[in-house]
Amino acid sequence: MPATAYQQLVTIFTRLYRYEHLAAMVGWDQAVMMPPEGNEARGAAMAELDVLMHRTLTDATLAELLAAASREPLSDAEQASLREMQRQWQLANLLPASLIEAKALAGSKCSHAWRTQRANNDWDGFLANFRSVVSLAREEGILLSHQTGLSPYESLLNKYEPGMTCAELDRIFADVKSWLPELIQQAMAKQATETRITATGPFAIEAQRALGVEVMALLGFNFAAGRLDVSHHPFCGGVAEDVRITTRYTEADFSQSLMGIVHETGHARYEQNLPHATRHLPVGRARSMGIHESQSLAFEMQLGRNPAFLALITPLIEQHLGPQAAFTAANLAQIYTQVQPDFIRVDADELTYPAHVILRYEIERALINGEIEPDDVPALWDQKMQAYLGVDTTGNFKNGCMQDIHWTDGSFGYFPSYTLGAMYAAQYFATLRRLYPDLDQRIAEGDLAPIFTWLNTHIWQQASHLNTDELIRSATGESLNPRYFRQHLAQRYLA
Amino acid sequence: MPATAYQQLVTIFTRLYRYEHLAAMVGWDQAVMMPPEGNEARGAAMAELDVLMHRTLTDATLAELLAAASREPLSDAEQASLREMQRQWQLANLLPASLIEAKALAGSKCSHAWRTQRANNDWDGFLANFRSVVSLAREEGILLSHQTGLSPYESLLNKYEPGMTCAELDRIFADVKSWLPELIQQAMAKQATETRITATGPFAIEAQRALGVEVMALLGFNFAAGRLDVSHHPFCGGVAEDVRITTRYTEADFSQSLMGIVHETGHARYEQNLPHATRHLPVGRARSMGIHESQSLAFEMQLGRNPAFLALITPLIEQHLGPQAAFTAANLAQIYTQVQPDFIRVDADELTYPAHVILRYEIERALINGEIEPDDVPALWDQKMQAYLGVDTTGNFKNGCMQDIHWTDGSFGYFPSYTLGAMYAAQYFATLRRLYPDLDQRIAEGDLAPIFTWLNTHIWQQASHLNTDELIRSATGESLNPRYFRQHLAQRYLA
Repeated sequence: MPATAYQQLVTIFTRLYRYEHLAAMVGWDQAVMMPPEGNEARGAAMAELDVLMHRTLTDATLAELLAAASREPLSDAEQASLREMQRQWQLANLLPASLIEAKALAGSKCSHAWRTQRANNDWDGFLANFRSVVSLAREEGILLSHQTGLSPYESLLNKYEPGMTCAELDRIFADVKSWLPELIQQAMAKQATETRITATGPFAIEAQRALGVEVMALLGFNFAAGRLDVSHHPFCGGVAEDVRITTRYTEADFSQSLMGIVHETGHARYEQNLPHATRHLPVGRARSMGIHESQSLAFEMQLGRNPAFLALITPLIEQHLGPQAAFTAANLAQIYTQVQPDFIRVDADELTYPAHVILRYEIERALINGEIEPDDVPALWDQKMQAYLGVDTTGNFKNGCMQDIHWTDGSFGYFPSYTLGAMYAAQYFATLRRLYPDLDQRIAEGDLAPIFTWLNTHIWQQASHLNTDELIRSATGESLNPRYFRQHLAQRYLA
Repeated sequence: MPATAYQQLVTIFTRLYRYEHLAAMVGWDQAVMMPPEGNEARGAAMAELDVLMHRTLTDATLAELLAAASREPLSDAEQASLREMQRQWQLANLLPASLIEAKALAGSKCSHAWRTQRANNDWDGFLANFRSVVSLAREEGILLSHQTGLSPYESLLNKYEPGMTCAELDRIFADVKSWLPELIQQAMAKQATETRITATGPFAIEAQRALGVEVMALLGFNFAAGRLDVSHHPFCGGVAEDVRITTRYTEADFSQSLMGIVHETGHARYEQNLPHATRHLPVGRARSMGIHESQSLAFEMQLGRNPAFLALITPLIEQHLGPQAAFTAANLAQIYTQVQPDFIRVDADELTYPAHVILRYEIERALINGEIEPDDVPALWDQKMQAYLGVDTTGNFKNGCMQDIHWTDGSFGYFPSYTLGAMYAAQYFATLRRLYPDLDQRIAEGDLAPIFTWLNTHIWQQASHLNTDELIRSATGESLNPRYFRQHLAQRYLA
C-alpha cells in the first residue's frame, strides 16, 4: 500500500526534526563549550544546515503533499498536525529567498555594529543600519499580510504568537496600563516602610551550582534527559529528549543565578514533557513563545518568588551557602520582590517589567505599520518611559531605545510574548488555587505534585494540538484575562 | 565564466566538510556531554546526517564531475586534491548500498552483544554473530579488490593506510619479530635489577586536570581552538578549527591520565596545524590512521616518556600533586618504561605493544583472505601469544581474542596503523636527532620548538598533498625503515 500524502509528510517532518536536533546541539555548543577560534567554521556549518532545512521546507513536492493531505480523510489529531505543518511551511515559503537573504544580511550587520554603538551611545550610527532593518521588516509584514489578512505588524507577531491580534493585545495592555503605574507607586511606598536584610557574599560558584542543581531536582528536572551549564546569556536549548539549560554566576550575588535556574527549569520541564508520540512533528512542539514563557514565569514568578516556596528552599540555601540573617523566608521574599523602576528591561522586577514590554509593543507596532519612522523612536521612548515608569532616558540611548538586541536583527513582534507569558502564568495559578485552596501550604511542605501534574496535563502534553486560545480555555475555563495578573500582583505587592 | 568541474567539486566537498563538522561535534557531545536519555534521538539525528553525507557522495553528478575534472588542466596541487576526492568518492561508491547496510547491521548487532559476551567469556555466543561480520568483510574485500587490484585484506587495509601492501607489512613485521621477543626478555632482565618507587595517591582530579592543561600548553596545544574534557574512552575529536581531546582520571594513579593527555595532544596538534588553505578538502586532511598515530606516539613515546621531557615536567608534577620520592625524572622514566607482557593490548607497554599488533595483523589477514575460519581464531591466538609474549590465553577469550572492539564491527585492516605509527614516530625522531645532536638537552631545557617546527613543516602542513611513502621520504630522506624503531627501543630499554 503506497504511503498517503500525510504519511509522506510525517517522514519529511521527522527528517526536519533530526536536522533541528543537529542545529540545536551545535548551537548549544557554540554558546556553552566552543573555543573562540572555532566560530568561523561553526558559523559555516550552521549556515549549511540552515540552507538544508530551508531547502527541505521549500521543496516543491512539500507544497503538493500538503495540498493532497488536506483532501485525505484525516483524524482530528492528524488535522491538527497538518495545520501545524502548514504553518511551518508558510513561514518558510511566503517570503521570497531574496528578502530572507536581505533580512539576514541587514540584521546581522545592524546587530554586529550595535554591540559597539550601544556602548558608545551612538544613536546616529545605529540609525543608519536600523533604517534598513525596519524597511525590510515592513516589507516582510506587508508580504505576509497578503496571505494572513492581518496587519503587517500582526503578521510578524503571529510568527511568535499564532492567533494573537492587535485588538486583543490593545484590550489587554490597555487594562494593564489602567492600573499598573499606580500599583507600582503603591508597592514602592509600602516597601519604603519595610526593612530588608541584604545577603552578603562572596558565594562560591560551586556552592551556588550545587544549590541550583538541588532546586532543579525539587522542580522535577530530569537530569537523565538534560544538563545545567554556564553561558553568558542564560537560555534553555537542546531538544525535548535532551534539554540544556544554562545560567551564569557571580560570587557577589547568589539570588540571580538561583532564580535564573528556576526560570529556565520552567522552560525545560515543558520541553521534557512534550508528548512522546508527536514531539518529532510540528504539532508536538511548544505552542508559542508566550506559552513557553508562561512556563518559565509560572516557575519563576508564581512558584519561585512565592514566600511558601522560598520557605521550602531556605534550608537548602542555608545548607549550601551557610547561614546568615538574610536567609529567612520572609526576607528572601523581600529580596525577590523588590520594586524599582529603572532603565533596563532584562533587569526589571516583576512589577515594572510589563511597562517595558508595553512601551516596546506600542513603538514597534507603529513602526512596522508605518505610523512612525525610525527617527521618531527616541522621543517616543523618552515620553513613554516618563509616563509609565517615571524614568528619564533623554539622550541616554544605550540605556533607552538601544538596549535590546531584538530590534537590531528585525525580531519585531516578539516582545509581547514576555508579558503574555506572565499573564498566562497568573491565570494558571488562579485556576490551581481554585482547585487547591491550600496550595501555598502544600508548596511550603514540598508537595509540588499538584502543580506539575496540572501543567503536564493541561499544557505540556497538549503541545500544539490546540490553538493558543483553545489551550488556555481548556486549561483555565476562559480566554486570557488580565484580571488574574492584576490580582496576583496586588496580592503579592500590596497585601 | 561557468565554474570548472574542479571548482564545482570544491563546492561540493566544502559542503561535505561542513556536514562532517556537525557529525564531529554531535559525536563529541554524545561521548562527553550527553545525558543517557538523549541517546535515541541523537542516534536518529546522526544516522540522518550519515544518510545525507552518503547521498552527497553517491550523487550521480559527482561521478561526472570527477571524470570531467580529470580532463581539465589542473595544477599539481589540484591534481593531488582531485586524487583525494577520488579516493573519498571510491570509499563511498565501490560498495553497493545493500552491502553497506548489511555490514552496519551485522557490525552493530555483533558489537552490541559483544559487550556482555566478553564479560561472560562467551566465545560460542560471540562466534554466531562474528561469522556474519567476517563473511561480509570478506565480501567487501573481494568487491574492493576488483577495483584496487590488491588482495581482499589489502583492500581493507587501504581504507586506513592508503598505499600500504601486505608485502611491505610482512617485510617490516618480519624484521620486528626477528628481534622483539629477545629485546623484551633483555629489558625485563635489566629492569628486574632496578628499584622503582611507586607514586602513592590519591591524586585529586582537579590537580591532575590542572597538571594536564599545563603540559598541553607546554606541548603547544591551542586552547583558543580546542578543549580538554573527560570521557570513558579517551579520544581526539572535533574538527581542525576546534579540536576536542578527552582523558579519564582515577584518583589512584596520575600517570595514565597525564600520558593519555600527551598522546591526544599529539593527535590534536596535527589537526590544529593542518593547512588553512585546504583543510576543508580531502587533500587538506590527515594523511592516514598510521600517520595520525605517528603524531600521538611522537608526542607520547618519543617525547613524553623521554627522561629529558620527564625532567622538564617533574617540577610541574610536584607543583600540582605535591612532592614525593617517586617524583624524580629518573624514577618517572622507570614508571613510564616498565615492561611486562600481559593479555591486554590497550594496557600494553611500548615494548610489548607491537607483538599484540602483529598477532592481530596475521590473524585478520588470514581470516579475510579465507585462509582460516572464525572458528580457528582462538587456537591461533593462543599459539601466537605464547610465541611472541609467553602469555597463556587458553580458554581466556575475554582477555584473548575477544578483547578488542575492532573485529566486532568489522574494522579489519586497522590494527597495523598503531605499530606503523610507532615506527614513523621513531624515524622522525632519528631524523631530528641528526639535525639536532643536542635534542635531549634542548628538551630538558624546555626548547621544544625544533620538534614542533619540524613536525609542522614536514607532516602537519603536508596533510594529504603527498602519498604516505612520499611524505615519509620527503620528511626523513627514506621510506619507512624499522631500523629506527629498533634503535629507539634498544636505546631506551637496554642502554
